Amino acid sequence: MSGIPQLLKQNIFAEPMKEANPVLPGAEVFYLDGPISLVYGGSLSEMQIAYETFGTLSEAKDNVVLLCPAFSANSHVRSTEANPSRGWWESIVGPGLAIDTDKYFVVCASLLGSCYGTTGPASINPQTELPYATKFPVVTIRDIMEGHARVLDHLEIDQVHAVVGGSMGAMQVLEFAIRHPQRLKRFINISGTAHTRPYTAAVRHLGRRAIMFDPAYNEGNYGRVLPIAGLRLAREIGTLFYRSREEFNERFDQDPLRAPGLDEIVFDVQSYLNHQGNKVVVHFDPNSYLYMSMSMDLHDVGRGFASRDEAFSQIQAEALTIGVKEDNLITVDEQYDIHESILRNGGRSHWVEISSRIGHDAFLVETDLITPAIKEFLES
Amino acid sequence: MSGIPQLLKQNIFAEPMKEANPVLPGAEVFYLDGPISLVYGGSLSEMQIAYETFGTLSEAKDNVVLLCPAFSANSHVRSTEANPSRGWWESIVGPGLAIDTDKYFVVCASLLGSCYGTTGPASINPQTELPYATKFPVVTIRDIMEGHARVLDHLEIDQVHAVVGGSMGAMQVLEFAIRHPQRLKRFINISGTAHTRPYTAAVRHLGRRAIMFDPAYNEGNYGRVLPIAGLRLAREIGTLFYRSREEFNERFDQDPLRAPGLDEIVFDVQSYLNHQGNKVVVHFDPNSYLYMSMSMDLHDVGRGFASRDEAFSQIQAEALTIGVKEDNLITVDEQYDIHESILRNGGRSHWVEISSRIGHDAFLVETDLITPAIKEFLES
Repeated sequence: MSGIPQLLKQNIFAEPMKEANPVLPGAEVFYLDGPISLVYGGSLSEMQIAYETFGTLSEAKDNVVLLCPAFSANSHVRSTEANPSRGWWESIVGPGLAIDTDKYFVVCASLLGSCYGTTGPASINPQTELPYATKFPVVTIRDIMEGHARVLDHLEIDQVHAVVGGSMGAMQVLEFAIRHPQRLKRFINISGTAHTRPYTAAVRHLGRRAIMFDPAYNEGNYGRVLPIAGLRLAREIGTLFYRSREEFNERFDQDPLRAPGLDEIVFDVQSYLNHQGNKVVVHFDPNSYLYMSMSMDLHDVGRGFASRDEAFSQIQAEALTIGVKEDNLITVDEQYDIHESILRNGGRSHWVEISSRIGHDAFLVETDLITPAIKEFLES
Repeated sequence: MSGIPQLLKQNIFAEPMKEANPVLPGAEVFYLDGPISLVYGGSLSEMQIAYETFGTLSEAKDNVVLLCPAFSANSHVRSTEANPSRGWWESIVGPGLAIDTDKYFVVCASLLGSCYGTTGPASINPQTELPYATKFPVVTIRDIMEGHARVLDHLEIDQVHAVVGGSMGAMQVLEFAIRHPQRLKRFINISGTAHTRPYTAAVRHLGRRAIMFDPAYNEGNYGRVLPIAGLRLAREIGTLFYRSREEFNERFDQDPLRAPGLDEIVFDVQSYLNHQGNKVVVHFDPNSYLYMSMSMDLHDVGRGFASRDEAFSQIQAEALTIGVKEDNLITVDEQYDIHESILRNGGRSHWVEISSRIGHDAFLVETDLITPAIKEFLES
C-alpha cells in the first residue's frame, strides 16, 4: 500500500505559506481603532480591513454593489492590472457581465477572521506582539458583515444599490439586510441559509476535526509548518458537499477492473479529490479555516431577536433568493425557507430555483445559470 | 480552543487493542490449506475461518439461513451463552423473531480480511511469521463471499434456504446468488448495490485517507499503537452517510446561543459524532478497515462476465430487495436497480421500499420496519 502514503508524504512537506495574512496586490487597506466588540463577547483592540473596488463610483454614489465573499474567497472578485490572477466571480463581475462594472461600482472586502489582509488569527496581536492564533476572538457572520459595513462608512457610502453573495456570502447578505435595512435597496442571496442546520454543522465539524487531529496543528501554534494533511482532508470532505452526488456519478468512472492492485488503485474520483485537497494547501491559514468554518455553524439570523420572524421583519429591501435543486450542503428547502420567511414577514421577495449537477458550488462554476436572474433583478 | 484538542488527546493515547485478530468467544474455527487464489490475483497459503451457528440443523439439512455481515460486523449475530454480548442482528435473529432460530439453522462467518478470527491483515503470515499488514492480498466482496461458501462445505451443507445481508452484507448476498445459483433457494439483500458508484467510493476514500494520514498509521506497521485519531475520523465521516440528513436535523439541536465560546462550543451533533468515533476505536484493526473499505469500492457483480446483465442472468433463486428511501450512502435508486436487473434478466424478484430517517443503517437500527417482509419472504 505504498502508493497512497507516498503521495501524501510529498504533500506533507510542501512549501509553507509565504506570508500568514498578506494584503492581496492592488487591495486597499484601512485601520480602525478599537475596542471593537464582537457578537460573541470578545473584542479587538484594532482592526485592519482589506478591500478592492471595481468600476467607477457615480457622483451621486448610487451605483454601488457590495459583494460578500464565500468561505475561502476574498476581495479579489476579478482580475485587475495590479492583480491579474483570476477572481472568484470573474464570469459574473466585469464590463457587460451580470454585475456590469461599466454601470456599477463593486466593493468587496476580505473577511474578518480570514487570511487575506483583513485582521484574522494570523495577524499580530498588538497586546502580545505574537500572532493571535487561537486567542483570536470568536467571530460570527454578523461580525464579518459589520466589516463590510465599515468599508462603506470608510468610502462614505450611505446606501448601496445591492448586496450580493453566495453560500457563506449569502449568510452575510441576509445579516446585512436585517441589521442595516436602510442601507440597501436590493439583495441577492444564492445557496444560503437563515440558520445552520445540524447536518451541515456535522460536515463542517469533521473538516475542523481533520485539521485539529493533525499533529502539525499543534493546538494552533504551527508557525510556518502547516498541518497540510489535515487541511487537505478538510477540503476533501468539503468537496463531497460542495458538489453533488449526481456530478460525481456522471463524471467519474469507477471501473475496478482497471485498477491493478491496492498499491496503485486510484479511481478517477480519488484523483479528483486529491486535486481538490491540493488546492487549499498553499493558500489558507489553518486557524482561519477553523474560525471561518465555526462562524457558519454559529450563523442564525434570529440571534438577538425574539424570533427569526422578527429578524426577517426588519428587512426593507427587495430580495432575490436563488436556490440550487442539487445542493448537497444546504438543501434547496432551506434556501426556499429564506424566500418564504421574507414574504411571511411582509417583505418583497423573488425565488429562482436552478438545477445544476455542480450543486452547492454552482454559483461559482455554472455562472451562466444565474446570470439572467442577477442581471434582470439588478436592473429592475 | 483548548477544549477539543484536549478531548482528542485523551483518545489518542487510549489503550491499544488487546489482540489483533481474536476468535470471538464461542465461535468455531476451521482451517483450509492453500494456495487459495483470490480474484485480484493474490493468494493465501492457508486460511482460517471463524463462524458461529444459531438454532438446530434439521436432519434433511434444509433449514439453513446463511447471514453475511456488514462492514464492521462479524459472526456474532446474537448473544449466546458462550458470548453474551449483544449481536449485530439481535432483534432479527432468534427464537420467534424474523429469522426464527426455532425453525432455522443460522450460519454466519466473520469476513476474510477483517479482524474477528477469520484470516486478515492482522493474522500471522506463515511465510514471514509476521503479521501480513499491508502485504495482505487485495480481497473483493466475491472472495469474502467464497469464505461463506467454504463454511457451508465444511458443514456439508449443499443448499441453503436463504442467504441474507444488509449493506456490505447485501453485496456478498448478490455475489453468492450469482456465483452459486444452485446453492440457495432465496436471498434477501437490504441497502445493497450491484456495483459501487463514484460518490460512495469518494466517501470511503476519505475514510481511508483519514487513517492513512494519521502518522501513527506508519504505512500499516503500527504494531499495538493504533492510529486512533484517524480511525475515529474515518468512522465519523462514515456516520454522515450511515445515517440521514433528516435524522440529524430532527434529532439534534443547533443553538449557538447555548455555546459559550470557541473553547467550549460543543453542539449536540458534535457530541454524537465524537461518540460514534469512540465506538470504532477499540474494536477494529486499521488495516482491516482499509481492506474492507476497499473491497466495497471494488465491488461489481459484473466482474468476470460480459456484462452485469449476464451476471444477473445466472440467478435462479427468488429475490427480495429491500431499499431505504432516505439512504444517504447507497441511494434507493441504486437499490431498486438490483430488483429491476433481476426481473430484466428473467429472475423472480420482490421489491420492498421502507422509509426511515435512520437511512442506510435502518436494517440495524429500525429492525421493526423490515421484520414483516423478511418473515413473510422466508416462509413463502
